[in-house]
Amino acid sequence: MTNREIPYKIYLEEKEMPEKWYNVRADMKKKPSPLLHPGTLKPMGYEDLRPVFCDELVRQELDDVTPYIEIPQEIRDFYKMYRPSPLVRAYCLEKKLDTPAKIYYKFEGNNTSGSHKLNSAIAQAYYAKKQGLKGVTTETGAGQWGTALSMACSYFELDCKVYMVKVSYEQKPFRREVMRTYGASVTPSPSETTEVGRKILAEHPGTTGSLGCAISEAVEVATHSEGYRYVLGSVLNQVLLHQSVIGLETKTAMDKYGIRPDIIIGCAGGGSNLGGLISPFMGEQLRGEAQYRFIAVEPASCPSLTRGKYAYDFCDTGMVCPLAKMYTLGSGFIPSANHAGGLRYHGMSSVLSELYDQGLMEARSVEQTEVFEAAEQFARVEGILPAPESSHAIRAAIDEALKCRESGEEKTILFGLTGTGYFDMAAYEKFHNGEMTDYIPTDGELSAGFDGIPKFAGNPQ
Amino acid sequence: MTNREIPYKIYLEEKEMPEKWYNVRADMKKKPSPLLHPGTLKPMGYEDLRPVFCDELVRQELDDVTPYIEIPQEIRDFYKMYRPSPLVRAYCLEKKLDTPAKIYYKFEGNNTSGSHKLNSAIAQAYYAKKQGLKGVTTETGAGQWGTALSMACSYFELDCKVYMVKVSYEQKPFRREVMRTYGASVTPSPSETTEVGRKILAEHPGTTGSLGCAISEAVEVATHSEGYRYVLGSVLNQVLLHQSVIGLETKTAMDKYGIRPDIIIGCAGGGSNLGGLISPFMGEQLRGEAQYRFIAVEPASCPSLTRGKYAYDFCDTGMVCPLAKMYTLGSGFIPSANHAGGLRYHGMSSVLSELYDQGLMEARSVEQTEVFEAAEQFARVEGILPAPESSHAIRAAIDEALKCRESGEEKTILFGLTGTGYFDMAAYEKFHNGEMTDYIPTDGELSAGFDGIPKFAGNPQ
Repeated sequence: MTNREIPYKIYLEEKEMPEKWYNVRADMKKKPSPLLHPGTLKPMGYEDLRPVFCDELVRQELDDVTPYIEIPQEIRDFYKMYRPSPLVRAYCLEKKLDTPAKIYYKFEGNNTSGSHKLNSAIAQAYYAKKQGLKGVTTETGAGQWGTALSMACSYFELDCKVYMVKVSYEQKPFRREVMRTYGASVTPSPSETTEVGRKILAEHPGTTGSLGCAISEAVEVATHSEGYRYVLGSVLNQVLLHQSVIGLETKTAMDKYGIRPDIIIGCAGGGSNLGGLISPFMGEQLRGEAQYRFIAVEPASCPSLTRGKYAYDFCDTGMVCPLAKMYTLGSGFIPSANHAGGLRYHGMSSVLSELYDQGLMEARSVEQTEVFEAAEQFARVEGILPAPESSHAIRAAIDEALKCRESGEEKTILFGLTGTGYFDMAAYEKFHNGEMTDYIPTDGELSAGFDGIPKFAGNPQ
Repeated sequence: MTNREIPYKIYLEEKEMPEKWYNVRADMKKKPSPLLHPGTLKPMGYEDLRPVFCDELVRQELDDVTPYIEIPQEIRDFYKMYRPSPLVRAYCLEKKLDTPAKIYYKFEGNNTSGSHKLNSAIAQAYYAKKQGLKGVTTETGAGQWGTALSMACSYFELDCKVYMVKVSYEQKPFRREVMRTYGASVTPSPSETTEVGRKILAEHPGTTGSLGCAISEAVEVATHSEGYRYVLGSVLNQVLLHQSVIGLETKTAMDKYGIRPDIIIGCAGGGSNLGGLISPFMGEQLRGEAQYRFIAVEPASCPSLTRGKYAYDFCDTGMVCPLAKMYTLGSGFIPSANHAGGLRYHGMSSVLSELYDQGLMEARSVEQTEVFEAAEQFARVEGILPAPESSHAIRAAIDEALKCRESGEEKTILFGLTGTGYFDMAAYEKFHNGEMTDYIPTDGELSAGFDGIPKFAGNPQ
């Protein structure tokens, strides 16, 4: 098929949209390691996790054998409101870069939450509603997840309590206001409303918060409130399952036009977008049906894959959550204050960590000034104002396309454009004014974080 | 066709996208009145307008006989980056309102400028580039038009000078920053950079600016700079022509599924969106092929159609622009300080003014608190966070749907959802905090504005 026959944007028809999520764990020979109870160090089972998560979500969290899981009709109906998302051929970017590479991106920003996070938010809210719960609690950093969950809870008329990392709460009043539009309550974290929040405040009076802190608070509230459960927007197996809708739509669209990606690129914080995008492609590779290059792109200031340890660690700062085996910088790690945008979690999805450890996926880190250069270049030719997070993937995609210009190779590059940057203009402003700086943590700084990784037999330090 | 067969979102295929704009003036028996020279009071011809607008745009401005005008391939290529826009069946809103009405909206917010303004911005930038110009100047109020033009100029590598109403410039630093991302220079208006700006500042030292002031400044800079022309995002005939792409896509999508709207609703500031949306439907009505109800919705605080005079008036505060026959509040009119969002122009497109005067279109005004109530209700069920401007149309659509609930009529309601409200969260915050107020200008206040309408034989006062 010639280029001319491929439209700028490929939209699937409603009837071509996925009816099942794909669970990549089912095709992994060596499975991701299970969550461990922080007290007993034993694998967490269904009953252990039920006080925290909705029942059906616990089942999904633990299920590493079922390859396809049906998407309930109610969720598929909601998906229809903002999905399918377009698979875009970046003709203008290709021209600007003067590259023989063919660049595609799956754009997940065309919904009010502004990112792919809504794909899992609506699923988690649905199962909470179905279980007859009153509401859910969660944390949010940059605010994309909190916004997505607010929208989903509003749709199902569930109460939604969001703990927002204090620095973001203060820097992004408009993010908070969008959540209020959808009826959520938003509390800056750490707060006086929880035991763990008060403890953290007492120990670190001036702290501006972290995702890890906010998780601890949200979990405490969920487990201490009748009719509430905790939900999380990334890292978890269930989230990658829901996000597989991104990859499934992408694969259907590509198959329809006979397109085969050579390189698949995604930004990686907790791994929700990357995991979702690559899942069906990785599945093919795990089954020996195809070969792809997968590249995870993370910030140099929060380099869990490229500089972290593969070990069991706490998912939260307050150390109330289960232990997960993952690439981690230590649950106390907080990225440098000059870090803009999301991708600031200390760990990484156990699924992606395992795939990376098995050598099935590459990882690279990029610095934020080069990320914003790529963002601006992309915005000017492709018309979409990308989120800083998404721009990590753009940076890597541009770099790969430029390599093709050197080598003359006509590679097909696919990347995930997870969201829009409307609420990140303060960071763009810094960039425009030449005030944006990079910061790469020293080995010494990283090893301080590693000290927090729990010590027990068999856990690498 | 049953409801179940109509998808939530109808996306046309690339090959179904319009190849020609539709010029509704060609089908009007009584044409809109021509622009008059402010000195001679004679109709402005091609040579008179060339110093201000690009040659091809002057031709489009003056052409009231050609029904279809080809969309150049370069513009169609750009349209493909963000169009077709979806025609959405508001299933969730219908359910929430418990109405037998069928509600559709054409959503124009799925591009970084966040609104329909890009449809004309790219056309105007294209013709400027084709004419070999260096750049263009313009004004922007709430910022949607300036953002759209910045994107379009960035795409064609044209210089872009934006005069932004001072109050918006100060209240919306992020809007400014998006424009900078696309390489535009943004100056708060009135400014010291123009003669007319200095004059206005001397007369009204504390002024926070108005669209009319900003237009005067942008026109002065364009006409005094070699290789520059002025461009405008609404009001003009050429803009309505370009915006007809909205209506044409809508009509194609509706025809494809056998849907026929009974009521077509749009918000109206200068008239760009409403004019574009209704054009092909109005054309049918003018040719006697169909009958529709058209409703223009404007803010009660800036009620040009419902309370203005139909007279020749200046398009700008500085009175340097041609006179246009339109429904006007007087070129010195500035909406109350509590007015949020756009739709603050003192006049209205000559085309729409004439259609309204002929009784072919209805108009109503709504107050902003009821507009934000509709916005929030819509956001919670349909998932899209609407711009305050667009929410005027939502308000009227909901009101019509509620009438259907009373009467049991299964009317089909179509409205234009022009854009998103990401940069309007300060207004949403006021609304959430109960601090938003309404203001309806008194007759006395309006008559002060009317005093500014130029007096000459045959011009109603």
